[in-house]
Amino acid sequence: MIDSATGTLTDAESAIAEAAGRCSNAGRWGADDVHGTLNFLTPDARVRAAALVRRGVTFSLAQSFDENGPQKGWRRRTNPVHTMTDTGTDAERGVQGFPHGIGGADDVVSMPLQCSTQWDGLGHIFDHGMAYNGRRAGDVVTSAGDAVTGIETAAALIAGRGVLLDVGRVVGGGELPDGFAITPDHLDATAAAHGVTVERGDIVCVRTGQLARARRDGWGDYAGGPAPGLSFTCAGWLHGREIAAIATDTWGFEVRPNEFADAFQPLHQVVIPHIGLYIGEMWDLDALATDCATEGGYAFFLTAAPIPFTGAVGAPVNPIAVK
Amino acid sequence: MIDSATGTLTDAESAIAEAAGRCSNAGRWGADDVHGTLNFLTPDARVRAAALVRRGVTFSLAQSFDENGPQKGWRRRTNPVHTMTDTGTDAERGVQGFPHGIGGADDVVSMPLQCSTQWDGLGHIFDHGMAYNGRRAGDVVTSAGDAVTGIETAAALIAGRGVLLDVGRVVGGGELPDGFAITPDHLDATAAAHGVTVERGDIVCVRTGQLARARRDGWGDYAGGPAPGLSFTCAGWLHGREIAAIATDTWGFEVRPNEFADAFQPLHQVVIPHIGLYIGEMWDLDALATDCATEGGYAFFLTAAPIPFTGAVGAPVNPIAVK
Amino acid sequence: MIDSATGTLTDAESAIAEAAGRCSNAGRWGADDVHGTLNFLTPDARVRAAALVRRGVTFSLAQSFDENGPQKGWRRRTNPVHTMTDTGTDAERGVQGFPHGIGGADDVVSMPLQCSTQWDGLGHIFDHGMAYNGRRAGDVVTSAGDAVTGIETAAALIAGRGVLLDVGRVVGGGELPDGFAITPDHLDATAAAHGVTVERGDIVCVRTGQLARARRDGWGDYAGGPAPGLSFTCAGWLHGREIAAIATDTWGFEVRPNEFADAFQPLHQVVIPHIGLYIGEMWDLDALATDCATEGGYAFFLTAAPIPFTGAVGAPVNPIAVK
Amino acid sequence: MIDSATGTLTDAESAIAEAAGRCSNAGRWGADDVHGTLNFLTPDARVRAAALVRRGVTFSLAQSFDENGPQKGWRRRTNPVHTMTDTGTDAERGVQGFPHGIGGADDVVSMPLQCSTQWDGLGHIFDHGMAYNGRRAGDVVTSAGDAVTGIETAAALIAGRGVLLDVGRVVGGGELPDGFAITPDHLDATAAAHGVTVERGDIVCVRTGQLARARRDGWGDYAGGPAPGLSFTCAGWLHGREIAAIATDTWGFEVRPNEFADAFQPLHQVVIPHIGLYIGEMWDLDALATDCATEGGYAFFLTAAPIPFTGAVGAPVNPIAVK
Repeated sequence: MIDSATGTLTDAESAIAEAAGRCSNAGRWGADDVHGTLNFLTPDARVRAAALVRRGVTFSLAQSFDENGPQKGWRRRTNPVHTMTDTGTDAERGVQGFPHGIGGADDVVSMPLQCSTQWDGLGHIFDHGMAYNGRRAGDVVTSAGDAVTGIETAAALIAGRGVLLDVGRVVGGGELPDGFAITPDHLDATAAAHGVTVERGDIVCVRTGQLARARRDGWGDYAGGPAPGLSFTCAGWLHGREIAAIATDTWGFEVRPNEFADAFQPLHQVVIPHIGLYIGEMWDLDALATDCATEGGYAFFLTAAPIPFTGAVGAPVNPIAVK
Repeated sequence: MIDSATGTLTDAESAIAEAAGRCSNAGRWGADDVHGTLNFLTPDARVRAAALVRRGVTFSLAQSFDENGPQKGWRRRTNPVHTMTDTGTDAERGVQGFPHGIGGADDVVSMPLQCSTQWDGLGHIFDHGMAYNGRRAGDVVTSAGDAVTGIETAAALIAGRGVLLDVGRVVGGGELPDGFAITPDHLDATAAAHGVTVERGDIVCVRTGQLARARRDGWGDYAGGPAPGLSFTCAGWLHGREIAAIATDTWGFEVRPNEFADAFQPLHQVVIPHIGLYIGEMWDLDALATDCATEGGYAFFLTAAPIPFTGAVGAPVNPIAVK
Repeated sequence: MIDSATGTLTDAESAIAEAAGRCSNAGRWGADDVHGTLNFLTPDARVRAAALVRRGVTFSLAQSFDENGPQKGWRRRTNPVHTMTDTGTDAERGVQGFPHGIGGADDVVSMPLQCSTQWDGLGHIFDHGMAYNGRRAGDVVTSAGDAVTGIETAAALIAGRGVLLDVGRVVGGGELPDGFAITPDHLDATAAAHGVTVERGDIVCVRTGQLARARRDGWGDYAGGPAPGLSFTCAGWLHGREIAAIATDTWGFEVRPNEFADAFQPLHQVVIPHIGLYIGEMWDLDALATDCATEGGYAFFLTAAPIPFTGAVGAPVNPIAVK
Repeated sequence: MIDSATGTLTDAESAIAEAAGRCSNAGRWGADDVHGTLNFLTPDARVRAAALVRRGVTFSLAQSFDENGPQKGWRRRTNPVHTMTDTGTDAERGVQGFPHGIGGADDVVSMPLQCSTQWDGLGHIFDHGMAYNGRRAGDVVTSAGDAVTGIETAAALIAGRGVLLDVGRVVGGGELPDGFAITPDHLDATAAAHGVTVERGDIVCVRTGQLARARRDGWGDYAGGPAPGLSFTCAGWLHGREIAAIATDTWGFEVRPNEFADAFQPLHQVVIPHIGLYIGEMWDLDALATDCATEGGYAFFLTAAPIPFTGAVGAPVNPIAVK
C-alpha cells in the first residue's frame, strides 16, 4: 500500500500484522527455542565456510569505539566514554607505588551496549507486548535484563559463512543516498552482479555506503536521522532465504525515515519478534568491500561473537572476516 | 635465585632486568612497530589453522560478563554493571510511547575494560617508565588513552591457530592448586602428553583449572588473590617459541602470590614491554578442554577479536574456537 | 506479635498491612501531592531553624564517596567508580595540547545513586505494586525513571531544623551492636537525655554508632549485613511525630537482620509508600555528635539538598549542619 | 592590550603571567593550605548570613541533571546517563522476588563530575604545570585523583552569605548576548543598582541570563560555544574583593569566545591556580533572581555543599539559597 501523493506506505498497523503473520518462525524450533535464525547456522555450514579461507587475510568489521560515533544522546544513547584509571604519564613520573619499576595503565568504559558495532538480541524488540517465540515481553526482559534470550545465548554460535552484498556499489555507484529503501530486487540484483548466491545459514552483510559518507562528511545530527536501509518489503525475503543473520553499515538496519509516515522501525517489529532474526548494525564493511571487489569473491569465513553480557538485549562485537 | 628458606625467588630487580635484556623484541619489527608478537601470526598460519575446522563445532572462551565475576573493587575494578534503559515490562504495560505496538529494550554497561575475559594491550604494562619498543610510557599512554599501541591496532589480527595446554589436567589431575607455578617443563610435558607441538604464531591457551574451582566454590575474596599461573621462569620459553599470544583461565596470567616476595606481576613486566606479547586473561577454557580430551585434538582455529575501543590498554573479547 | 522462641516478630504480612493502614498519609495533602512529609517543613520552621546558627560552625554529614564505602556488588550496587579524563601528570608533562601553559584535570563517575550518603525518594519503595499517595507503581517508575515523585521534586525543600538523637551514645554507651532494634522508647529516652524535643517538621538524625565501628574495623562483607537500626515498631512514632524526614548512619535505616524472619525491609514498606517519609541513609553523624555532646545542644540548622537527577528514586546528598 | 582591528586582547601569554603575579594568593594561608579563598568564609560571616533568613523560602540553584543539559561529548563530557536497576513496572508485575509485597526501584548514573551545576575544585586548572599554592601539578592530580586539594576538602565549608549580581537584568535588560564580556565596572554597577555591597567572604552569584535563553531556545551545538561571561579583566576584582567563591549561570564562567584570539579559558588560568578561587558553573539563578527583584533584596543565606567524591577536581552541587 503506497500513498500515491506522498510515496509513503500506509496503514502500518495492518501491514506489520500481515507481514508478522506471514513470516513467523514462532514454534519452528520448539517452544523453548532461544536462538531463532541462528538455528540455520549448522556445523556443516561452518565447515564449508572455513574452506573459504585461502589467503589468510582478515578484516575487522567493527567501527572504532570512541567519541566519534553516531550517538547524540537520544534515548540516553551516548558514544562510549573511555577513561583511564592508570596512565603512562603517571608511571613515568613514578607516582604509582609499584615495586621494582613496574608501571601500568588501566581503563574503564561506560556505554550503551548498542552504541556502535553490535548485534541486536532477540529481546531487543517486541510486538504488542510479545517477544520472540510467543513469550510475553515482561516474562523475558525486566530491569534485571533478558532472562530468556539474553545475548549470552549466542556467545558461541555466530561463526559461519559471510556474504557481502555491496548494494551501495552495485545500485548506488558507491553509496546509496539517505532515505533509499533497498528492496528484495536490489538484494537479488546485487548478488547476481557479485556472482554470489545467498544460502541457508548465511550471515548477510549489506553495505549501503552511508558509513563511508559519514566518515568523510561527519555524522552531523545523527543518530537515527535519514539513512539508506532495507525496505519494509524485505520481510519476506529475510524470512524465506533462511539466513542466520543480517548486518548493515547503518545505525538502524532499515531505511530512515521509515516508509510508513507514522511508524517506528516497522521492519524490526517483524523480523526480531516474529522471524527471530539476528540483526547487526553499524558494521564497517568498507575495507572488506574493497577487497571483495578487487578479488571478485564475496563469500568468506566470518566470526562475529558478541561480548556475552548476561541478560543483554544487544552487545558490542568485533566481527572478523577471513578470506 | 631461589631462597632456600622461603622457596621464593630473590633479587627481583636484577632478575627482571636480566630476563628483560635476554628476551627483548625491541626493534625487531622496526622502530614503528605496534603489533609485537602478533607479527608472528602470518596469513599462511591462518590458512593452515582454518584447515583444522573439521566438525564445525564452536566454543566460546569467554566467561559470562556479569556481577558474578572475580572483581572486588581493588584498583577501582568492579564487575560489569549492566542496566536497562528500556524493558519488556515497560513495553508490555504500554508505557513506552512508540506507535503501532512496537516496544523495545535497551541497555547500558559500565565496566573496567580488564574486568573479565580480555586481552592486555601493549600499553598495559611499563618497565621503569618505558613501554613496548623503547617508547617512553608518557609518550604512549596519557589520560586520553594509548595513542600508539591502543587495542584498536589489533582489531583485525587475532585469528589463527589456537593450541590448548591443559596443564590443570595433565599436571594437576584436573586443577592446579592456588600458588602453583607453571614452569617451561610443565608446558612442554603437557604439550607432549597432548601430542601437540607449539608452533610459531600460535595462540597458546593454558588451562590451570582455577576457573572451574571458582565456579564451584565461589570467588571468595578474589580478585588478585592466590592462583596458579605461569612461573617467572617462563619468560625465555614465551620469547623463544615465537608464539603470537598466550591466554590463561586466571585473573593474572602469572602465579599468585608472585614468586618474588616483594614484586608485583614481574612476568608481566618482562613479557609486555620487552617481548611485546599479547596476554589473555580470565578466559573460560573448560568446555573446550573437555572436547579436546574427548577428541584427542588440542589445536583449532581461533578468532579472538578485541572490541576496538580507541586507545584502550586492554579490551573485552569473546574468543571463539572452531574445530 | 513476637515469637517467644526466636525473639523475631511473626506474621509479617499482617503486621505490615496493619501498620500501613494505621499510618497512611495518602490523600492528606491532596491527590496530586508529591512531597509527602516534606509538607511538614514550613517556611516558619525554617526561620526558627536559622536562628539556631550562633557560632557559625559547619559539619558535613556525608561519608566520603569512594571505593571505601559499604557496597559489595549486591543488586548491582558498587561503590562510586571515579576516574580522570585529564590529570596534573599529563598537564605537567605538556601532553594536553592547550595554549599558553594552561592545563586541566577533569573527572567522571559511575555509581548507584544510593551507594553512599543519600535520600530515598518516594518512588524507591512500593507496597503490593502501589507507590506513595495511592498511585500504581508502574504509573510512577518505569525504566525512564520516576515521572511523578522523582527526587528533583525535593530539590529546594530540605532546609530546616535538624535534631540529632545519638542513641548510640545514650543507649549503647557509644555504639549500638549490630542487630539492635531501636524502639520508640529508645528514641524518646535519647531525646530526653539530650534535653531536646522532636518537633513537627524536624529532620531527625539518628546516630547508631555503626559507622564509627565500620570506620575502625572495616566494612567486612557488608552491604546489607547486620546493623543496628529502627525497629518495625517505630512506624507509629514516625507517623505521629509529623517529622519531615529521618536519617541514620547505617546502610538501611531499619535494623538488620529485619525483625520478621521472612521479610525484607518491612519498615520501608510502611514509611515510604504509606507515610510518604523521606529517609536518609549512610549519613556520617560522628563529628556532629561529638560537637553536640560537648556543647550540649542537639538542634541545628540543616540543609540536605539532593542532587536533582531528573526522575531519580534516590540521590546523593552532602548534608550540612550549621550551629 | 586590545587589538584595535579585531577588538580582541593580544599577547595572552604576557597578560596571563602579569595577572597571575599581581593576583597570587600563594602562601597567603601557609604552605599547606588547601582551601584557597574559602579561608575568607569565617564563622562570623556565617552567623551574619544566617540572620538573612526572614521568610523561610528556599531556592535550589541547580539545573536539572538529565539529558537536556549543555554537554555534547566534547572532551568526553556527556550529560548524565541515568538508568534504573529496578522499576515500578517490574514491582507491579511481581517479577522482583521480594517477600510480602514489597517492591523497589533503584538507579545508577554515569556522568562527568563537571557536566552540570558544579564547583571547580582547586585541582581543576594548572598554569605551566603548577597547581594552587605553588605545587607541581603532577604532585597533586594523577589518574588516582587529586590527592591534595580534592573536593572533599571543601565538603563542610561552603555555607555563608550569597549575593546575587543580576548583570543580565541590570546591564542586559534581562539577558546578556553571547560573547558579552562582563567587566569590573559591570559588576560594580549591578551591585549599586541592587543596593547590595560585595563583602569579604561572600559567595557571589553572577546571572547572565544565558540559561534562560538556552531553556527557551535550546542548547543547540553547545557545550563551550559562545556565551556571556566574565572578562579577563576581572582578575583583579576577583582577587581584591576577597570573596570566598563565585558562580555563574554559564558553562564556563568566563566569556566565550575568550577575549584573546588564541587562548583557552585564560581567566581560569589565573583565578584557580593563583587566586585559589572556587568557581561555580551552570548554576540556575533564574527563580532566585525573580524573587530578588520582587523583594528588592539580593543577599541571602547560601549553602552549596559539593558531593565529596574523594580526590575529585570538581563536583556536582545543589546550592540552596534561603531568604
